[in-house]
Amino acid sequence: MKKKYVIAVDLGGTKIACALTDLEGNIINENTIPTNAQEGEQEVLKRMFLVIEKVLEDSKKNSDEIKAIGIGSPGPLDSDKGIILDPPNLPLKNVDIVKYIEDRFKIKTYLENDANAAAIGEYLFGAGKETRNMVYITVSTGIGAGAIIDGKIYRGATCNALELGHVTILPDGPRCNCGNFGCLEVLASGTAIAREANKNLAHGIESSLNNYKKITSYEVFKEASLGDKMSLEVVNKALGYLGIGIANAITAFDPQKVIIGGGVAMAGDMLFDKVRKVVKERCFKVLNESCEIVQASLKTKSGIIGAAAVAITESK
Amino acid sequence: MKKKYVIAVDLGGTKIACALTDLEGNIINENTIPTNAQEGEQEVLKRMFLVIEKVLEDSKKNSDEIKAIGIGSPGPLDSDKGIILDPPNLPLKNVDIVKYIEDRFKIKTYLENDANAAAIGEYLFGAGKETRNMVYITVSTGIGAGAIIDGKIYRGATCNALELGHVTILPDGPRCNCGNFGCLEVLASGTAIAREANKNLAHGIESSLNNYKKITSYEVFKEASLGDKMSLEVVNKALGYLGIGIANAITAFDPQKVIIGGGVAMAGDMLFDKVRKVVKERCFKVLNESCEIVQASLKTKSGIIGAAAVAITESK
Repeated sequence: MKKKYVIAVDLGGTKIACALTDLEGNIINENTIPTNAQEGEQEVLKRMFLVIEKVLEDSKKNSDEIKAIGIGSPGPLDSDKGIILDPPNLPLKNVDIVKYIEDRFKIKTYLENDANAAAIGEYLFGAGKETRNMVYITVSTGIGAGAIIDGKIYRGATCNALELGHVTILPDGPRCNCGNFGCLEVLASGTAIAREANKNLAHGIESSLNNYKKITSYEVFKEASLGDKMSLEVVNKALGYLGIGIANAITAFDPQKVIIGGGVAMAGDMLFDKVRKVVKERCFKVLNESCEIVQASLKTKSGIIGAAAVAITESK
Repeated sequence: MKKKYVIAVDLGGTKIACALTDLEGNIINENTIPTNAQEGEQEVLKRMFLVIEKVLEDSKKNSDEIKAIGIGSPGPLDSDKGIILDPPNLPLKNVDIVKYIEDRFKIKTYLENDANAAAIGEYLFGAGKETRNMVYITVSTGIGAGAIIDGKIYRGATCNALELGHVTILPDGPRCNCGNFGCLEVLASGTAIAREANKNLAHGIESSLNNYKKITSYEVFKEASLGDKMSLEVVNKALGYLGIGIANAITAFDPQKVIIGGGVAMAGDMLFDKVRKVVKERCFKVLNESCEIVQASLKTKSGIIGAAAVAITESK
């Protein structure tokens, strides 16, 4: 029997999403459950099994109709060995996740860093379809990235390439969770934008953000778009740094496209106009003119379709 | 007849070096002549022909014993089309250099950016021999770089990848020749080191550098190593920026090795100690521990052996 489906698992700190897709990345059936990370390793593994079984059952498919399982997970991990090493938001430490899943379901399983998975998803089924070289960058709570080089995901020597959230943008900048100072993530992530706005409010700076109980980057972008001066300043500063990070990635990788995803990219024109302006100012003309900077097209499905794309490409 | 030799041409703004090497990159015969760039395109081409003919003649080889010619040239250029586009220090604009050489010598010819050529040289015959993924960076008058990814030079979409001299390190830093502000090159090249030292002297700062008529980065490193305070400050500041540039390259490419070449790398321990310290401070532990930072081993021959390596790999 020709195997025409894959299972995709998007493992996150708060929820586990699972889907059965065809080999073109179309979702046939999907389900999401809470990760219950605080309950520890065994519980998280149990819940992964549960959601995969549920999706198989609801799709009325047997294991032998499934070509492969793809897992997108926060790093650090070793995709060659199929081991999740020690992600900050998951109680999984040196867990042979691929072996666990393969033993249970008898389906060939592949593990990939979540940003790399989303990059592969955009390359196969999204905004990167016509490229051979592209950089994907996701800007949300944190900042992650992945690169497709000559049609293949680029992992680097230790599977940690493209940690673009942790390149230094401002040598004397604020301290990042990673220990370094002035990382892109501490300057331009959604968390950074909300932190700056909250700091300004605490200093008594006048702003329409005072009307909100809780402020995330979403509210800051919203008020900026309505003309709130403080919100605009915070957003512009962060996007200026994001633009530098992306300009530096273009200068290093000379890609055909930079694809920006993640919650913060939903800000749309306000983000893309500023980033493109900074790239134009800071990159060689030939690089700026040849590289398109576009929004990710898989949007909220980038995690799950990315995991499906990992299963599809790796099992070819 | 088995073709056992290649010809290497290292085209520079002040001199053209040419060598005949075997397929292991050993130089059999070499010659160097001034470029005479100020005399214009035809003169430069004539001198390239001249030096190639001289090397062939001195080696007592005919064209039909030569497998290929490799040319290393300053960019921008298009290596696929074999065209030198518009390098700042050469009077060659949109010159079909590969066609000219092939028409003249009836030998298959390949063109490569000089930093890429040096990277290929180090990969095949130098400090990068045991790697599959490495970044080469040359620090001299300017700063250039090249990356080997999965055993192949990485050129990018427009042959301009790895222009690491022009990544932004200090957003509000001094203006670079390229038009951008705070580029690595304007902060950490040999030119930048000499400029900073000269500026300090002009401001009347006490220094043993006052004993020299002309100051290049060589004198600044020399006096720094002898304990001159001002020289030490200039060198440390520049190497701090170089360290950030290299830390960012490691975070982006996750290479097995970073190989540093060019005149400034001759400073040895003073440079490598500082760069390794900054990388340790700024990179993920796994990246810092897995990536070796070493001196280029081809030294002053990196240009010519790089060009030979281009001929050897491309004609395989």
